[in-house]
Amino acid sequence: MRTVNVGLIGAGRIGKLHAEHLAFRIPQANLVTVTDIYVEAAQKCAADFNIPNASHDHRVVMDDPNIDAVVICSSTNTHAQMIEEAAAAGKHIFCEKPIDFDLARIDKALQSVDDAGVKLMVGFNRRFDPNFKRVRDLVAEGAVGTPHILKITSRDPGPPPIEYVKVSGGIFLDMTIHDFDMARYLVGSEVEEVYVAGGVMVDPAIGAAGDIDTAVITLRFANDVIGVIDNSRKAVYGYDQRAEVFGSAGVVSADNNYPNTVTIGDAQRIHRDLPLNFFMERYTESYIAEMREFIACVLEDRVPPVTGVDARIPVVIGTAARQSYEQHRPVKLSEVA
Amino acid sequence: MRTVNVGLIGAGRIGKLHAEHLAFRIPQANLVTVTDIYVEAAQKCAADFNIPNASHDHRVVMDDPNIDAVVICSSTNTHAQMIEEAAAAGKHIFCEKPIDFDLARIDKALQSVDDAGVKLMVGFNRRFDPNFKRVRDLVAEGAVGTPHILKITSRDPGPPPIEYVKVSGGIFLDMTIHDFDMARYLVGSEVEEVYVAGGVMVDPAIGAAGDIDTAVITLRFANDVIGVIDNSRKAVYGYDQRAEVFGSAGVVSADNNYPNTVTIGDAQRIHRDLPLNFFMERYTESYIAEMREFIACVLEDRVPPVTGVDARIPVVIGTAARQSYEQHRPVKLSEVA
Amino acid sequence: MRTVNVGLIGAGRIGKLHAEHLAFRIPQANLVTVTDIYVEAAQKCAADFNIPNASHDHRVVMDDPNIDAVVICSSTNTHAQMIEEAAAAGKHIFCEKPIDFDLARIDKALQSVDDAGVKLMVGFNRRFDPNFKRVRDLVAEGAVGTPHILKITSRDPGPPPIEYVKVSGGIFLDMTIHDFDMARYLVGSEVEEVYVAGGVMVDPAIGAAGDIDTAVITLRFANDVIGVIDNSRKAVYGYDQRAEVFGSAGVVSADNNYPNTVTIGDAQRIHRDLPLNFFMERYTESYIAEMREFIACVLEDRVPPVTGVDARIPVVIGTAARQSYEQHRPVKLSEVA
Amino acid sequence: MRTVNVGLIGAGRIGKLHAEHLAFRIPQANLVTVTDIYVEAAQKCAADFNIPNASHDHRVVMDDPNIDAVVICSSTNTHAQMIEEAAAAGKHIFCEKPIDFDLARIDKALQSVDDAGVKLMVGFNRRFDPNFKRVRDLVAEGAVGTPHILKITSRDPGPPPIEYVKVSGGIFLDMTIHDFDMARYLVGSEVEEVYVAGGVMVDPAIGAAGDIDTAVITLRFANDVIGVIDNSRKAVYGYDQRAEVFGSAGVVSADNNYPNTVTIGDAQRIHRDLPLNFFMERYTESYIAEMREFIACVLEDRVPPVTGVDARIPVVIGTAARQSYEQHRPVKLSEVA
Repeated sequence: MRTVNVGLIGAGRIGKLHAEHLAFRIPQANLVTVTDIYVEAAQKCAADFNIPNASHDHRVVMDDPNIDAVVICSSTNTHAQMIEEAAAAGKHIFCEKPIDFDLARIDKALQSVDDAGVKLMVGFNRRFDPNFKRVRDLVAEGAVGTPHILKITSRDPGPPPIEYVKVSGGIFLDMTIHDFDMARYLVGSEVEEVYVAGGVMVDPAIGAAGDIDTAVITLRFANDVIGVIDNSRKAVYGYDQRAEVFGSAGVVSADNNYPNTVTIGDAQRIHRDLPLNFFMERYTESYIAEMREFIACVLEDRVPPVTGVDARIPVVIGTAARQSYEQHRPVKLSEVA
Repeated sequence: MRTVNVGLIGAGRIGKLHAEHLAFRIPQANLVTVTDIYVEAAQKCAADFNIPNASHDHRVVMDDPNIDAVVICSSTNTHAQMIEEAAAAGKHIFCEKPIDFDLARIDKALQSVDDAGVKLMVGFNRRFDPNFKRVRDLVAEGAVGTPHILKITSRDPGPPPIEYVKVSGGIFLDMTIHDFDMARYLVGSEVEEVYVAGGVMVDPAIGAAGDIDTAVITLRFANDVIGVIDNSRKAVYGYDQRAEVFGSAGVVSADNNYPNTVTIGDAQRIHRDLPLNFFMERYTESYIAEMREFIACVLEDRVPPVTGVDARIPVVIGTAARQSYEQHRPVKLSEVA
Repeated sequence: MRTVNVGLIGAGRIGKLHAEHLAFRIPQANLVTVTDIYVEAAQKCAADFNIPNASHDHRVVMDDPNIDAVVICSSTNTHAQMIEEAAAAGKHIFCEKPIDFDLARIDKALQSVDDAGVKLMVGFNRRFDPNFKRVRDLVAEGAVGTPHILKITSRDPGPPPIEYVKVSGGIFLDMTIHDFDMARYLVGSEVEEVYVAGGVMVDPAIGAAGDIDTAVITLRFANDVIGVIDNSRKAVYGYDQRAEVFGSAGVVSADNNYPNTVTIGDAQRIHRDLPLNFFMERYTESYIAEMREFIACVLEDRVPPVTGVDARIPVVIGTAARQSYEQHRPVKLSEVA
Repeated sequence: MRTVNVGLIGAGRIGKLHAEHLAFRIPQANLVTVTDIYVEAAQKCAADFNIPNASHDHRVVMDDPNIDAVVICSSTNTHAQMIEEAAAAGKHIFCEKPIDFDLARIDKALQSVDDAGVKLMVGFNRRFDPNFKRVRDLVAEGAVGTPHILKITSRDPGPPPIEYVKVSGGIFLDMTIHDFDMARYLVGSEVEEVYVAGGVMVDPAIGAAGDIDTAVITLRFANDVIGVIDNSRKAVYGYDQRAEVFGSAGVVSADNNYPNTVTIGDAQRIHRDLPLNFFMERYTESYIAEMREFIACVLEDRVPPVTGVDARIPVVIGTAARQSYEQHRPVKLSEVA
């Protein structure tokens, strides 16, 4: 195989992002089909990115013997089923996170992947961000010695629509799930216990929908590291994505990304522009690097760096976090998993 | 009164620091006597800072009708008694923190102050640090809107001698106590609950002495703010003292202080010198400003900005923190106080 | 016209860069032919970027009536001729800088463009860098009031091969030419006089080749602004590209770009990685934005933002700079142009 | 000698600053007398800083056999005479810069110092600033290898009163003189040639007084380093004092000093407070360190680190700079000295 023939399922915001990268930025990928239940979305995507085929029916992808790999960007509630269908069709799979909110459902999907012997990679794109990757590599190289404390700040520029909040699985499974993955990735050890202090501070409507919008989450890892994540649904100054690992030999910290390096001094203050506003801008490079890695794993027959287990564990942590918040006590992951 | 006649009790490290400031930096103060149970220490201090009288006996200060105010820098276990004696002698009091580890003992000392009608100020010097003060003022001015999240990083460059660890009252009453005070100061509300995740990561001898050396502490405030403090007894890169307050309208953050602003670029990296190493260097300005404020409060008959209650509450929080760590659950301050 | 059919002449390093952008990043461009005097280079480029036609003969581009625009990336000594041929063929032109080192030769080429009524844009890509563009926009908006002082630091990570130095036209026409363009761009006024202090500090072989490798260049602008450029052929810490404009109402400064935002604190220092190493990494975004703008100007029938005059003036400044260095005196551009 | 008995001549702004340091910050100094032609100023200074004697007549200092050293802070036009009188009286001398604007007058004063065999130190306080001192030490240690380029930015927050401008000796002898000294100090070599591009951009009244307010000054050093100083009389964002030395092995840069490290992010921008506003705030530490060094040199019989020659040379450079500006050409110092 010189190139990977790819079918894309789902042509929403994230689907279009992957389409662009597959079409124009990754020569080893050949994007042959896009499907979306809204056929106009599929057709528009096909036109924009020179994709030969568009359809409303994802089976067009599954049934095409020339397609080697599927990129699943449909709505979350279809992920597990799509994985199972793709596995049954013998196709390698890239799936946006999460696979599902129900652990048994995830396990069933992962089993189908194992049975089929195909590759599965899950879209925790932030692992491919140059900042976080540099922190991870430095920690792995021993730049901080034995890690003691992990800190992640993760604040969105604004809350999602309230309709989304109602079905998203809650802040821990929708937003913090990325931070749970990042925590495991940076520390290189598994979370064993979680404690949440949270509240509704941004918008009472979020509380009315049964969710919270602000949280400070304490993690205990198997290697004794203590982690803390602070989340907010609304940072008026923009998308705030930082991390720090402190250990016996030092500290490494990743700051935000800015659109430029310009500082301005006037008669009132020294200032600069706000950080890049949201994930499409902040994590552009990481999306490309992630998809490059998936295509390379297929071509070179390597295990993808973000596996089905990596998809499952953050859902476990998120579920435990929800329990901790509701029961006002530290919760062990072994109570949940 | 044009100047305040001051007696200093205790000529150890912090006593000498206050002596220098009272002698040379605060024209409104007149340091007339220094005492220390080691009379040579008192005499050396007197010689260094032009103090007319030195003695081994603190009663020389208490009994001198010309002395208006007492600065108590003796060992912690004598603070409460010294406060009571000074109050009985009708003298205004500056006392290093903490007054005591026992709440009843603190209350008795504070009662004596109330009965005597003298002023009492406690040495939480970090409130007078230009960085933290600027954060507090900005928060109070509404620069962050309604505060949501407080973060304090407080890491020492190295642990104290193990002999000190055994009698210090533990990390929460010896080290974190400053951060508990800072938390209240920055947020402007009272802590209601505390949860600790901690461990022994720096030195097993600290664990053997019954203490921990690393902690992540979650605070819940009466105004719903969630705070998190992370502590370590040993940051190899130096004294790490940062704070951040995040709220509905923005974020303010204080970084460390460095000995200079110089950056160096060589063939390997861009680098700068380590931050100022420990509290004597880092907080020099704050010690001067603190003592200036005490002298000014006496002269102008104002209530000091750090009162007896401000001394008591961090001991309550520290006691609750210890319980939280031992019992592995969130602890309400009302269980302790 | 919905898309612009483009022919690329020259498939060296910069040609391949433009090829990639035209092929994959700019949907409005349709790259149909690439030529290079080394036909293998053209064929490799065609294969890499899905370009239908490759040839050793640039006339294939000139003679193709379906080609709307030519991108000239051949060697500098052919630029003027290529411009003239393209103009004669009625094609819009993007040409890498410089057009030529001889002002009369430049003028002849520009005349041919004027006569043909085609568009010409010259590759001063740094104008499209997000940092420098932000500085320019802020200056133009009045953020610094009336500009007084301009400072540009421009240092390469290492000198070019000595064979290149011998034919490059010298540091002022090869390297500083970008800074001369940047100076005009940031200040928004014309240079009237130049004074150079320079020397051979990096490599004596550069001196033996008749050039210098280090220079501090003072510029006087028509609007009275004083500018200073400092150049070195070798900054061991990497590519150093900064600018500052100071004026009556403030200052704006652009710093270098770094591969990540990570800082590391260890027992010796606080450090970070070196800046992005050279122009291909540092200015990637600017190359894309530049070419997008050229294609858009063709499609929308707009005057390109970097014209033939913009190509000519930096050569005038560079020529005057050389005279200033040789004659050890300030030289007016009117003496040269 | 255990302490140095000091007489202070001149109780203006800078005289009071030195008085405070001598009185309160330097135990080895004993400030016994202050004089000022306005006796009220001397008396006020004496009262503020516990100085036993105050007088309108500087001869009280010169004639006091108990006084070991004189600190000269009178008006510039009296410096040379004061030095001569102090030398004749056998007293060690600290004198504010400049000694005089006339080189012959300086030489005569320096001769009197040599004849008397007393010590003379001149008040180039910035050498004792922690930032600039760190740059110098790094350069001297070889951190940048062989130095190639020096850059100094020196901008005042606002121009002095126009009456002062008329008698100050002009921008080069009043303001840039500090930068000329800094240039020699950082590079560790002598300036041989100077070229000035300057203008009146801040206030036409400065031009009407025969001076300029904005300048970019190119320096050639004996060791081939090229230096550039940029000056403005008015930076609206405050006192801008930076330096950079670039060389074969790297670069070192000193940034401004700020009153705190706090950053603020709001819905518009990320910002911080302006830098420390003017020399009294910015250089406080350097004034103390400078005077400590002078006292130590007297006590330890060492040659002061800023000698009479160090006082003379910046006047030579300033004079050459003025000629360069007036004659619009580079001027060698050998033409002036």
